Amino acid sequence: MSAADFPLALNTGTTPNLDLRQAVEATAEAGLTHIGPWRHLLDGAGGAEAAAKIIAEAGLKASTLCRGGFLTATGPQARAAALESNRAAIREAATIGTDSLIMVVGGLPAAAHVLGGEGDRADKDIAGARARVGDRLAELVPYAQEHGVKLVLEPLHPMYAADRAVLSTLGQALDITAPLPADAVAVVVDTFHVYWDPQVREQIARAGAEGRLASYQVCDFNLPIASDALKSRGMMGDGYIDFASLSAWTAQAGYTGPVEVEIFNAEINNQDAKTTLATMKERYAELVLPHLEAAGANAPANAAAGL
Amino acid sequence: MSAADFPLALNTGTTPNLDLRQAVEATAEAGLTHIGPWRHLLDGAGGAEAAAKIIAEAGLKASTLCRGGFLTATGPQARAAALESNRAAIREAATIGTDSLIMVVGGLPAAAHVLGGEGDRADKDIAGARARVGDRLAELVPYAQEHGVKLVLEPLHPMYAADRAVLSTLGQALDITAPLPADAVAVVVDTFHVYWDPQVREQIARAGAEGRLASYQVCDFNLPIASDALKSRGMMGDGYIDFASLSAWTAQAGYTGPVEVEIFNAEINNQDAKTTLATMKERYAELVLPHLEAAGANAPANAAAGL
Repeated sequence: MSAADFPLALNTGTTPNLDLRQAVEATAEAGLTHIGPWRHLLDGAGGAEAAAKIIAEAGLKASTLCRGGFLTATGPQARAAALESNRAAIREAATIGTDSLIMVVGGLPAAAHVLGGEGDRADKDIAGARARVGDRLAELVPYAQEHGVKLVLEPLHPMYAADRAVLSTLGQALDITAPLPADAVAVVVDTFHVYWDPQVREQIARAGAEGRLASYQVCDFNLPIASDALKSRGMMGDGYIDFASLSAWTAQAGYTGPVEVEIFNAEINNQDAKTTLATMKERYAELVLPHLEAAGANAPANAAAGL
Repeated sequence: MSAADFPLALNTGTTPNLDLRQAVEATAEAGLTHIGPWRHLLDGAGGAEAAAKIIAEAGLKASTLCRGGFLTATGPQARAAALESNRAAIREAATIGTDSLIMVVGGLPAAAHVLGGEGDRADKDIAGARARVGDRLAELVPYAQEHGVKLVLEPLHPMYAADRAVLSTLGQALDITAPLPADAVAVVVDTFHVYWDPQVREQIARAGAEGRLASYQVCDFNLPIASDALKSRGMMGDGYIDFASLSAWTAQAGYTGPVEVEIFNAEINNQDAKTTLATMKERYAELVLPHLEAAGANAPANAAAGL
């Protein structure tokens, strides 16, 4: 395995002050080959086709599209709206040339700032919310398959279970995908979200064995937790995550492909993007890539082939 | 099952401005029968024997002692200090008349503000830290048994995995207890820490079946997460936890005994303790107790007997 098997990618959540063209230019100037844009940057660029052109003209490829999801609503109108939004996201992913639509599945209806449904305010039934995620995914599968796009479930750190994602572990995400085809529903390993999980090694291996390991995202877990808890992510090496182990397990599970850096952190988000990209490259080369390369060399052939 | 099977208890973490005597008086005045003190209140009262007298003279019983733990150090001196501190905590628990010493097992050595070891700064090996927890528990078991005290492992919310507890789920805590005797090592279900866990129902049942369900603590999970993340706990009903389900599952697993309310929350911690206790009683009677009583009536006899 060589560095070419694990190209570093910028997730545009790391550089929220840049529009798509600026983010693409910064990524290309830093010598990276992949970018994972958020949907609002596509809108800002004039739509997915214009965005695809901007990305391609800079010689880049899209690693993922962030994001679809928010599938936990109970009411028929909110459910229909969620499906419509996700179908649009599937089309956008296909248009910009990625097969990976990252999915943040949504929180409890009681967390009204997410779903906005006044009638849902009292619903704290997390098991019920998870069941609805499975139902909505099944409804989206045919559309995803038609467009050659995978719905890539992102288990989020349990600190976001109430308001953002009732999927908290890789094992749980894989359980939800079990009845659904692997060419349409997969998972992403994001180090921030899963590093603490006592089952993470086994579940990364399972994701690989089941052909559902679609993306690897890296950033660190900083302490103290930021006053805006969403922004507790850190540059690799600044926090408490053991990237050697997680990267080795991911490569051993057969993952090859772009490795995105997605950091929500007030200081990093507001500094010059060149600085951010330069530090990303250094830390990735030091803390992540060597462990992907070494372990990937020993990965099973079937997993490496994405089977 | 009646309310007497599930007496409400004040954990003194909820009223941090009160010394032991004040907390005992407020608890008794509110009509509660149990209190779960933190160790520093025993010190402030002149030691465990003096504390035991204060508690007994008010007609109260100690539900737990908070807390032992912090067992993840790598160096021999820090390990010896941790064992010595835990042996003292075991003696104190016995002296104040509780058989439950709550254990927060400790975080990564790299989180130096916990362990203080300069040489440990680079250690982010969470699996290694968990293994040391098991080793230290095994060393403490004979002393705990001699004193009739259980080491009650508290899986903490994963947001505290790096700096406070490398045990994040009930399943993981029960796995660690497996080689150790059930009369010496048990677990506590704290709603704040475990509500998000997709396996929580099964693991509460398992804790009961294995005779290791030693304590039930209730408080809510508030949003947004507080700027001091430790203080994100809320009064039952103010956040996003489904107390009906968790309480039913705990009683179905055979738990009877005190139900502690432990809330770290800047507003609640600084308001008048009478107000806090009055609200606790109301919310407990409304949101928690009915589900304990109803489900407990159907609990298996062997579990209800604590076997």
